[in-house]
Amino acid sequence: MTDEQLWFDQADTGLAGAGAVTVLSRADVRNCLRELDPVDVVRATLADHDRGHCLLPAEAYLRWENSHGAYTRSIGMPGAVLSARPSYGMKVINASVSNPTVGLERAGGIGLCFDAETARVTTIMEAGLLSAVRTAAVTAVGVDAAGYAAASSLTIVGCGAQGRMHAALLRRRLPDLRTVSLFDRSPEAAHRLAAVHDDGHLELTVHTDAREAVAAGEIVVLTTTADEGYVEPDWLRPGALVVNVSLGDLTDAAFLDAAAVYVDDLDLVAENPRRPLGRLMAAGLVARPDDADGTGRRIDATLGGLLTGRYSPLGVATPHIVLNPFGMGVLDVALYAAISAHASRTGVGTPIRLG
Amino acid sequence: MTDEQLWFDQADTGLAGAGAVTVLSRADVRNCLRELDPVDVVRATLADHDRGHCLLPAEAYLRWENSHGAYTRSIGMPGAVLSARPSYGMKVINASVSNPTVGLERAGGIGLCFDAETARVTTIMEAGLLSAVRTAAVTAVGVDAAGYAAASSLTIVGCGAQGRMHAALLRRRLPDLRTVSLFDRSPEAAHRLAAVHDDGHLELTVHTDAREAVAAGEIVVLTTTADEGYVEPDWLRPGALVVNVSLGDLTDAAFLDAAAVYVDDLDLVAENPRRPLGRLMAAGLVARPDDADGTGRRIDATLGGLLTGRYSPLGVATPHIVLNPFGMGVLDVALYAAISAHASRTGVGTPIRLG
Repeated sequence: MTDEQLWFDQADTGLAGAGAVTVLSRADVRNCLRELDPVDVVRATLADHDRGHCLLPAEAYLRWENSHGAYTRSIGMPGAVLSARPSYGMKVINASVSNPTVGLERAGGIGLCFDAETARVTTIMEAGLLSAVRTAAVTAVGVDAAGYAAASSLTIVGCGAQGRMHAALLRRRLPDLRTVSLFDRSPEAAHRLAAVHDDGHLELTVHTDAREAVAAGEIVVLTTTADEGYVEPDWLRPGALVVNVSLGDLTDAAFLDAAAVYVDDLDLVAENPRRPLGRLMAAGLVARPDDADGTGRRIDATLGGLLTGRYSPLGVATPHIVLNPFGMGVLDVALYAAISAHASRTGVGTPIRLG
Repeated sequence: MTDEQLWFDQADTGLAGAGAVTVLSRADVRNCLRELDPVDVVRATLADHDRGHCLLPAEAYLRWENSHGAYTRSIGMPGAVLSARPSYGMKVINASVSNPTVGLERAGGIGLCFDAETARVTTIMEAGLLSAVRTAAVTAVGVDAAGYAAASSLTIVGCGAQGRMHAALLRRRLPDLRTVSLFDRSPEAAHRLAAVHDDGHLELTVHTDAREAVAAGEIVVLTTTADEGYVEPDWLRPGALVVNVSLGDLTDAAFLDAAAVYVDDLDLVAENPRRPLGRLMAAGLVARPDDADGTGRRIDATLGGLLTGRYSPLGVATPHIVLNPFGMGVLDVALYAAISAHASRTGVGTPIRLG
């Protein structure tokens, strides 16, 4: 090597660089998850958020079309929890809608933990498993907080990764659950999910009509890829809780006629008018809980506010309740910190010297 | 392990997850950099940007104070180049201003490459070295494009990592360079940089006064941590090119009185009114090149526009020329793609199965 080839080495300041990081594969994350309760982490972080202890900056969003013309994107979501156990990090979650056609999960990415003092990246972990676990955990917390923990019937519309995760978690969290109704545009997907839970303890029905499935559940979880509303208020049984995970399935009337609407974060909903609830807010048809001048219906509470007692849940109420969890990257960041701490204690992961 | 502990495994769809990534340490990146010319990559990408072939979404920005009260932050910058060799990725660059006091480089982070078809993370690399190389490469391209490649004198104000990188690169790129003038608030830092280049081929002067240093250079590179303007127009020698890397050193008059002002990206400058040039744009004192209604002075050209010939450089002109490179993460992303391709060809890096 000549001097010329290494000109950039002349810039070395003698200060230490990136140092070591620990890389956690999905198997490592799974091993740590066995020893943690992600629902507890999510619940505590939602309450921290309500107390103003979380930082949720605007996400960075890159979208493109791949060679099949499929919608493909990367989202970077930094976040921090400034509570007793501070957490700093970023979720990088990418997806292409054509991935399943080539045998890949639609979404995938990495979760990063940052050192609170130096901002150095300390841990890099597989993010897809935790993203799905987090989403289902928010629903589980919401079901409790909204007063639906005694439900005996559950409907899942959309039996992909999110639907499967919700079924697995809610089955554990609903002690009185007896009936599970499933629908997917692909009947095979619904039957595959039914088979997972067909152990004699549940009455499982795969519906060929979405409306029939929706009508069957005290709790209805929507985990589809729909981009146009189709679930009308009269599809829902009186007193149902509809958890709008995929955000695009409910008609405007299903929001406007609800007995109560709960969200995870008001700003995230309001700042995204491409989503139905954000569009209704932008149009002045839905207002914030504290908006004295707002016309139209109010959002009744945030999930964190229900947890801290700042809002009171309506309980089971007719015609129905809507829980609209937009998705908060800071919840993933809190999970990364918990996983990383556990991995560090137990020696899980691959250490790599970044430099 | 019980069924209950592994509820989340019931969500497995059978689709493939994150797959394998290659991790590149700084040493790996350095080995690849030996075989590439980062200035070529940066020049080509700036031209691609001018042709509308780059995607530069808004960055995600998390800031906090560490336990010393020091400004600490993380920035996520996704970007894409949609040219013959497409590049998709994200720069995650974190920093704390107190890092050098504990022996660490101020900034550090990771660079990510994404698969164009699936958006999967394919490569994770140490980003600090490339970030500094990219910044200096933009200056090198700008010096050429502005018509200053024949300069025989160079001033560096701020002799940290960026100043050192600039000195190392510009020394290679300026064949007629004879005189290098250095200033740093810490004279030791300036003397350390002088010692690197003290090989008998250059006249090196460490100044104890910033103004004297600035007055000595046909090219003046500002790489400080200043947050208030102090470089007045009459500090500069007639016909100088001042490269405003650190963005905060020039007074308003130094912008307003310039014979020409060049930037890397108009939107980035305009959208950041906390920086002086963006503030002048917000105040209506500086307008875009194509702003027919703009009052005040115009920005004369973008760097990419100079490269593609859409704008013509003024050449060496009095009183002085300002090059204001805000910093484009997509240039880093283009470098990540070049490094990753080279690493893949030559078997450099640590493969890790993420899941």
